[in-house]
Amino acid sequence: MSATRPTIVIAGVGNGSGTGAATARVFAKAGYRVALIARGADQLKKIVDEITQAGGEAEAFPISSYSYADVTAVFTLIKSHTWPSAPHTSPIRVALFNAVSVVFKSFFDVTPEDLASVADVSVHSAFAFSRQAILAFRENHVDVSEGGSGSRGTLLFTGATASLRGNTWTSAFSAGKHATRALSQSLAKEFGKENIHVAHVIVDGGILTDFLVARQEEGEARDNFVNNPDARLDPESIAKSYLYLVGQNRSAWTWELDLRPAHEKW
Amino acid sequence: MSATRPTIVIAGVGNGSGTGAATARVFAKAGYRVALIARGADQLKKIVDEITQAGGEAEAFPISSYSYADVTAVFTLIKSHTWPSAPHTSPIRVALFNAVSVVFKSFFDVTPEDLASVADVSVHSAFAFSRQAILAFRENHVDVSEGGSGSRGTLLFTGATASLRGNTWTSAFSAGKHATRALSQSLAKEFGKENIHVAHVIVDGGILTDFLVARQEEGEARDNFVNNPDARLDPESIAKSYLYLVGQNRSAWTWELDLRPAHEKW
Amino acid sequence: MSATRPTIVIAGVGNGSGTGAATARVFAKAGYRVALIARGADQLKKIVDEITQAGGEAEAFPISSYSYADVTAVFTLIKSHTWPSAPHTSPIRVALFNAVSVVFKSFFDVTPEDLASVADVSVHSAFAFSRQAILAFRENHVDVSEGGSGSRGTLLFTGATASLRGNTWTSAFSAGKHATRALSQSLAKEFGKENIHVAHVIVDGGILTDFLVARQEEGEARDNFVNNPDARLDPESIAKSYLYLVGQNRSAWTWELDLRPAHEKW
Amino acid sequence: MSATRPTIVIAGVGNGSGTGAATARVFAKAGYRVALIARGADQLKKIVDEITQAGGEAEAFPISSYSYADVTAVFTLIKSHTWPSAPHTSPIRVALFNAVSVVFKSFFDVTPEDLASVADVSVHSAFAFSRQAILAFRENHVDVSEGGSGSRGTLLFTGATASLRGNTWTSAFSAGKHATRALSQSLAKEFGKENIHVAHVIVDGGILTDFLVARQEEGEARDNFVNNPDARLDPESIAKSYLYLVGQNRSAWTWELDLRPAHEKW
Repeated sequence: MSATRPTIVIAGVGNGSGTGAATARVFAKAGYRVALIARGADQLKKIVDEITQAGGEAEAFPISSYSYADVTAVFTLIKSHTWPSAPHTSPIRVALFNAVSVVFKSFFDVTPEDLASVADVSVHSAFAFSRQAILAFRENHVDVSEGGSGSRGTLLFTGATASLRGNTWTSAFSAGKHATRALSQSLAKEFGKENIHVAHVIVDGGILTDFLVARQEEGEARDNFVNNPDARLDPESIAKSYLYLVGQNRSAWTWELDLRPAHEKW
Repeated sequence: MSATRPTIVIAGVGNGSGTGAATARVFAKAGYRVALIARGADQLKKIVDEITQAGGEAEAFPISSYSYADVTAVFTLIKSHTWPSAPHTSPIRVALFNAVSVVFKSFFDVTPEDLASVADVSVHSAFAFSRQAILAFRENHVDVSEGGSGSRGTLLFTGATASLRGNTWTSAFSAGKHATRALSQSLAKEFGKENIHVAHVIVDGGILTDFLVARQEEGEARDNFVNNPDARLDPESIAKSYLYLVGQNRSAWTWELDLRPAHEKW
Repeated sequence: MSATRPTIVIAGVGNGSGTGAATARVFAKAGYRVALIARGADQLKKIVDEITQAGGEAEAFPISSYSYADVTAVFTLIKSHTWPSAPHTSPIRVALFNAVSVVFKSFFDVTPEDLASVADVSVHSAFAFSRQAILAFRENHVDVSEGGSGSRGTLLFTGATASLRGNTWTSAFSAGKHATRALSQSLAKEFGKENIHVAHVIVDGGILTDFLVARQEEGEARDNFVNNPDARLDPESIAKSYLYLVGQNRSAWTWELDLRPAHEKW
Repeated sequence: MSATRPTIVIAGVGNGSGTGAATARVFAKAGYRVALIARGADQLKKIVDEITQAGGEAEAFPISSYSYADVTAVFTLIKSHTWPSAPHTSPIRVALFNAVSVVFKSFFDVTPEDLASVADVSVHSAFAFSRQAILAFRENHVDVSEGGSGSRGTLLFTGATASLRGNTWTSAFSAGKHATRALSQSLAKEFGKENIHVAHVIVDGGILTDFLVARQEEGEARDNFVNNPDARLDPESIAKSYLYLVGQNRSAWTWELDLRPAHEKW
């Protein structure tokens, strides 16, 4: 494998059924080294093994919390990581902040602990992750290949319907998602002139993850959601939109893109 | 003074030149008892004295921090407060969350402490304040007076341009303001059916507070901002919009209202 | 009656049960002379008679179409109208564009005639009305009364949920409503510096007009809509929000305000 | 060339320097037959010749106006067009509505003729074009190729900053662009369930077309705009985003995507 392969850093990888893992697979197949940050070491290992067995390069970087300090530390570790196939460190050219604190609760059930979790993930760690990503991108040369992006790096955020509007059951969740979206906008405006691309993707619908399947109540609605591919987003399609954004030429960069299943009604 | 006067609780009162203090004055004049929450005990006392001397009723409730616990504690104290003119406690019918952590900094100058301050004010204390306000409103009868609001209470949030979009210099500030706006939307949708009105006001321009005057650099721009009343918002006008929102009949409630000077160019 | 009474011009008055008629009543009661523009001469007469009998001043200005030419002509007529109680013409200080071409149809049922109607009302006549209103306002002195608006005049637009997003059944309707909203934004920005206030009001829910009652299918939904005051907006409340906007001081003007019933779920 | 090549229909092609022509080139290179609709027959011929000489297939369909009838007629003609390389008609799988009536004028300079032009292009012809496109798509089989879109066809709209907000100088232009955006949203929601993809692209900045170069005043601003590739969008990059949207799998479709140069400041 080439020593000049770029690295993608992904924060927020669940049990392998969601957007983070799908992005890992898609970028590994596209030739990226994949550095995975998440809290669950076992699940990280599973995805790393899967990618490695498929001929890709991936490494797990488990953290114990989404605090500012932990995220900063793990990203620093990734920067100095020596990949087996490379004689030296690999340039980090893509960073995806996919971590989320999912709190679906009526307002009066939201606890101070829920809020701390939301603030940790959507504010503290989002800022820490962005800082390290942009610092890493500043070390890169601008991509001047024919038809290339013309960028030093791409910072991506996974958003949700709750990034756009609050709703019953999402007071805490949407507060966090709104905060991260504001960060994304600020960064896009501040660092575009350094040829650093920052983009936010609104995932406007349900993804068929194990988590969401478990949340569906028994009955017709669940059957429909689980069995009807048109009622949910395929994580691989989301991942491909990230790959597309990374390849956009800097003469026409997207700051925000929405995604939903074709049959979605809203 | 009547024992049936309602109370307004205002969190976030600066040095008397801003929106919080103006709202205190306008509602005091309209017959409300005013409970003021802020960190600066001296400045709170100054405003309370001013309102009292003008024949109004106001009381200072200083806090040492905008933590969830401190905000919960002080609001609880206000609920059980016995006003001199009343034989018993006074119904809290309006609550304004006007607290803000103003961080105008280039992204790389934002510190973890800035983020903690933003999260404290715009997430933790906003949720704690809202919770206590709605619990207080639930104790109220619905206003069934002729031409009345038909509500149990009104929860107001002071927003800013940064509530709508992030920008260079506002990565941290706008993250917090977005979070609070999401909270406001969620609460409006969840508690409207209980006849509790939640509204968010976008203050889309500069207010001539001492703070902002100090921030303006010397020269033409500052002279223009300070001397030209059409370049800035008058806090009293903002306060009057709050009084209007409180009086709206529940057949047509506003969730969000924007405000700016007539000559504002954006 | 005073010769210095201001005039409000209202375009779009249905059968007396909607926003236009309610605004006429509310402003007449507040001391305005009311000039009513609409296509149905009989219904206009009914509302004028009602206002006159209640001691107000109103006049009907029927038009045969919402073409640019017809709207321009009727507004010119209103400008030169001599009110019985006045020795000379009355200053036009408020203009409400409330006309609408309601097309609720599946896309494939929308005809070229529907589109012509939408364009006539929401583009051609909206522009013609705005032009005449702003020309009229430019003749006015700035209101410099204590606590006054500081304006030369206020131009109001009645918007709808369809002003914010298109939906199935509203392809034509929302195209028109979006166009008018864009006009309102442009005018607010262009004429604010002349102390002319332009505001757009999003009526985000159903109004209990005869038209909408007729549209509801029989059954539970209809009973709920008709009998439950919390499921619909009261036109009088909308009209009061217009009166509030007209009174706003120019140090804090609203460009857009949304309205919905307290129990609205969206 | 294969008889199964799909056709893209593009309405709105200027002098060859803008988005319509770039899209024609990009899709021709990607294997599409290109049917071009515009008012300028000479300029159409130039682009057709260029594509043909490069080995692609293109055909000019000039129209005399953007009326509902003319657009309907020309689209009908395209549907029955026999391409030289094909034994029968070619399936129309992509349609781009790129026509625009550019009116940059102070409000009082907007004429009734300007409004008629805006309504013709952005309402009447946009609806006529969409209708014929969707009818054509309904004739198609769903793309069930491995990794394919899962769609029957893709309808694209070129939007602008003025699609999102009105501004001074854009009262007429933004009214039209808002109307078309509303149409796009309505169609996306109504026809997604038929596996027809409708997407709107916000071109949020200047494109270096001859028209815009001519509009720039002499001096530093013009030099910067013309000479600095980071100050303007490259039409080819816009065209590539259209190609991307057409290829999106229907499990994650984008309804709106924004594009701007990396160094854009807003």
